[in-house]
Amino acid sequence: MASLPVSPLAPSAFPELPALPGCRFAAVEANIRYKGRTDLLLGTFVAGTQVAGVLTRNQMPGAPIDWCRAQLPKGLARGLVVNAGNANVFTGAHGRTACEETAKAAAALLGCAPAEILLASTGVIGEPLAYERIVSGLPKAQAALSDDAWAGAARAIMTTDTFPKASTRTAKIGGVSATINGIAKGSGMIAPDMATMLAFVATDARIPAAVLQSLLSRSTQRSFNAITVDSDSSTSDTVLLFATGAGPAHVEITRAADPALRDFKSKLDEVLLDLALQVVRDGEGAQKLIKIDVTGAASARAAAAIGRTIADSPLVKTAIAGEDANWGRIVMAVGKSGQKADRDKLRVDIGGVAVARDGMRVEGYDEAPVAAHMKGKEIDIAVDVGIGRGKATIWTCDLTHGYIDINADYRS
Amino acid sequence: MASLPVSPLAPSAFPELPALPGCRFAAVEANIRYKGRTDLLLGTFVAGTQVAGVLTRNQMPGAPIDWCRAQLPKGLARGLVVNAGNANVFTGAHGRTACEETAKAAAALLGCAPAEILLASTGVIGEPLAYERIVSGLPKAQAALSDDAWAGAARAIMTTDTFPKASTRTAKIGGVSATINGIAKGSGMIAPDMATMLAFVATDARIPAAVLQSLLSRSTQRSFNAITVDSDSSTSDTVLLFATGAGPAHVEITRAADPALRDFKSKLDEVLLDLALQVVRDGEGAQKLIKIDVTGAASARAAAAIGRTIADSPLVKTAIAGEDANWGRIVMAVGKSGQKADRDKLRVDIGGVAVARDGMRVEGYDEAPVAAHMKGKEIDIAVDVGIGRGKATIWTCDLTHGYIDINADYRS
Repeated sequence: MASLPVSPLAPSAFPELPALPGCRFAAVEANIRYKGRTDLLLGTFVAGTQVAGVLTRNQMPGAPIDWCRAQLPKGLARGLVVNAGNANVFTGAHGRTACEETAKAAAALLGCAPAEILLASTGVIGEPLAYERIVSGLPKAQAALSDDAWAGAARAIMTTDTFPKASTRTAKIGGVSATINGIAKGSGMIAPDMATMLAFVATDARIPAAVLQSLLSRSTQRSFNAITVDSDSSTSDTVLLFATGAGPAHVEITRAADPALRDFKSKLDEVLLDLALQVVRDGEGAQKLIKIDVTGAASARAAAAIGRTIADSPLVKTAIAGEDANWGRIVMAVGKSGQKADRDKLRVDIGGVAVARDGMRVEGYDEAPVAAHMKGKEIDIAVDVGIGRGKATIWTCDLTHGYIDINADYRS
Repeated sequence: MASLPVSPLAPSAFPELPALPGCRFAAVEANIRYKGRTDLLLGTFVAGTQVAGVLTRNQMPGAPIDWCRAQLPKGLARGLVVNAGNANVFTGAHGRTACEETAKAAAALLGCAPAEILLASTGVIGEPLAYERIVSGLPKAQAALSDDAWAGAARAIMTTDTFPKASTRTAKIGGVSATINGIAKGSGMIAPDMATMLAFVATDARIPAAVLQSLLSRSTQRSFNAITVDSDSSTSDTVLLFATGAGPAHVEITRAADPALRDFKSKLDEVLLDLALQVVRDGEGAQKLIKIDVTGAASARAAAAIGRTIADSPLVKTAIAGEDANWGRIVMAVGKSGQKADRDKLRVDIGGVAVARDGMRVEGYDEAPVAAHMKGKEIDIAVDVGIGRGKATIWTCDLTHGYIDINADYRS
């Protein structure tokens, strides 16, 4: 398909990612589906690298998801192979073979066990993956491995993304610096509980796989699981977190509750949320980034469910696309969520302006400041449902003609 | 807003509805929001008319929903007042007053109790309803009451509908004819468990309210609760079924299981399904009517949930808008439904052509006949999820630029 104009919500520049000891990447052209662009990513990690992952809950998972689910409990990674253009989903025995052959080939090159190779694929569903092209592309990728290939890596995994996505932070573990670098791709089928979304994050800290898994699961909940583009959840969603242990030596970490991890957790949250919001900013056709704060719910889970119902409502999303402060549709969406909410205490704010209080439009409501807010690129909605103390924040984007353009013509 | 072109899926003509003994309608211009068109409907029913209703489950119901919920248990109706243009939702004490004053005024005109007046409103949410205009329009409506006003009634309740919706059948109760006439309006916020949808159905049969309620609840489940346009469910959805008892005398009916009701039930199903499908055919921006048959689910409820997830998936709906037989997105939607499904047994047919079997694309799959089917106005999708014997049918429409056009600009 023709390349799309860059999202108006894109960050102004790709961030500078420092080299991350123990981790190298290369991106090459394997012609799996796209022509004239990189579509195969090889990542390598030093011996001893620990890995954790969060995978889609979609019940029609792709073969690479099955593969990762089988390998992740071992917690060890030496290689990562990702292709764009074909998701290797719903491909039966051929899909399993594609994974096995790819892992075997990468393991032979890297001198490790196939079980230490993690795999991800993104693109069209239901077409056999020409894995021979991956296998034959791997030696070229190995020859190109570099400490400084993060930007190329972020580009190689794009599908309908309009900009490459990356984030970096430096954390302190007991006074010693650790780097956290991450890349991600969106941008359709983005929904809570993982999305058609791949994210690969690495740190040079030395953290055992079990602890790493605990940190990743917690941080995903408030980042990738708090975003939605169109409510559709992918068969391929994958977030992997690698810890090479090749950075400056720090205190030994044996449990997730270790106070020495406090800053690391906070920085990991920042990297994951930054990547997740970049995914929303590149939602197909997105013109506006929408933040929805829900308070007063029966529980945090109820608040998140209400937030997602608002975020996924086509009527809310199209109203925002039209820069229309149609708060009645927000009320409708709260009511449709199935969660407890007190109509006669409901409060709605848009752009920090009180719109509804106690189940009615605010007395003397002046739409002018709200209308002005709706013209901006970032829309803030706050809803208090008057039941309890549960709260959550969900991010989404608007539903525009661009979404239809992209998705009514994706395979052609 | 400017009037919209008639849906390409509209029936070729408005049906001829016979007079229904005991029931009269009138439609007048009350200028509640629209100018130069009828927007107020008055219906009257002979003394003794029984009524049943199914109302929205949205937890932010409009004041007329609260009103009907309070009156329906009594089972008696003498009048129906409906306005278009303002939904009287989220209007607090003013909304309650609007209902009380409207019912009081209609009751005074008709010589009955306010509790025998049923109310419905459709249109914008959150703006005070100028009920004085309704009250002052009622006498004019009363003067215009007619046996032959079904078409006018169907027009007066339209909002973004592009064609008026009606259906009629003649049923036999123990060999005696009974008429069933119905009108409905859509067309946004149409979703399972009722929709931004009003439907008023009347029969001249003599059926007590408790039996009527049982018949209506059952029939709604397989009609209005089996359609979805955009997953959004309205704060105002109302289906009312009136039985005037003024038609030819038939055997006495005292229970829903009476075998004498067999044909009546079947014809009531037909009227409700006909109206429900007209609502889908007029889904905002709809270019294609989509039927989704789900079989092999753990239960009928699970099958319906899978069908709705497919029907509500923006990626499925946009693919169909693009006439793209993108069955991979159907697989994705099955997997996201949260219901049990066996990936490796999954079967997908489009337009009667086998597309996927046993978790893979069919060997030697030829897309040509499926691509031809996708160009038609009616799309058939069948999915068997390989778990059990539960089945359900769900209807929806595609997601097009027209939906965005209509909904990004509704209030302006």
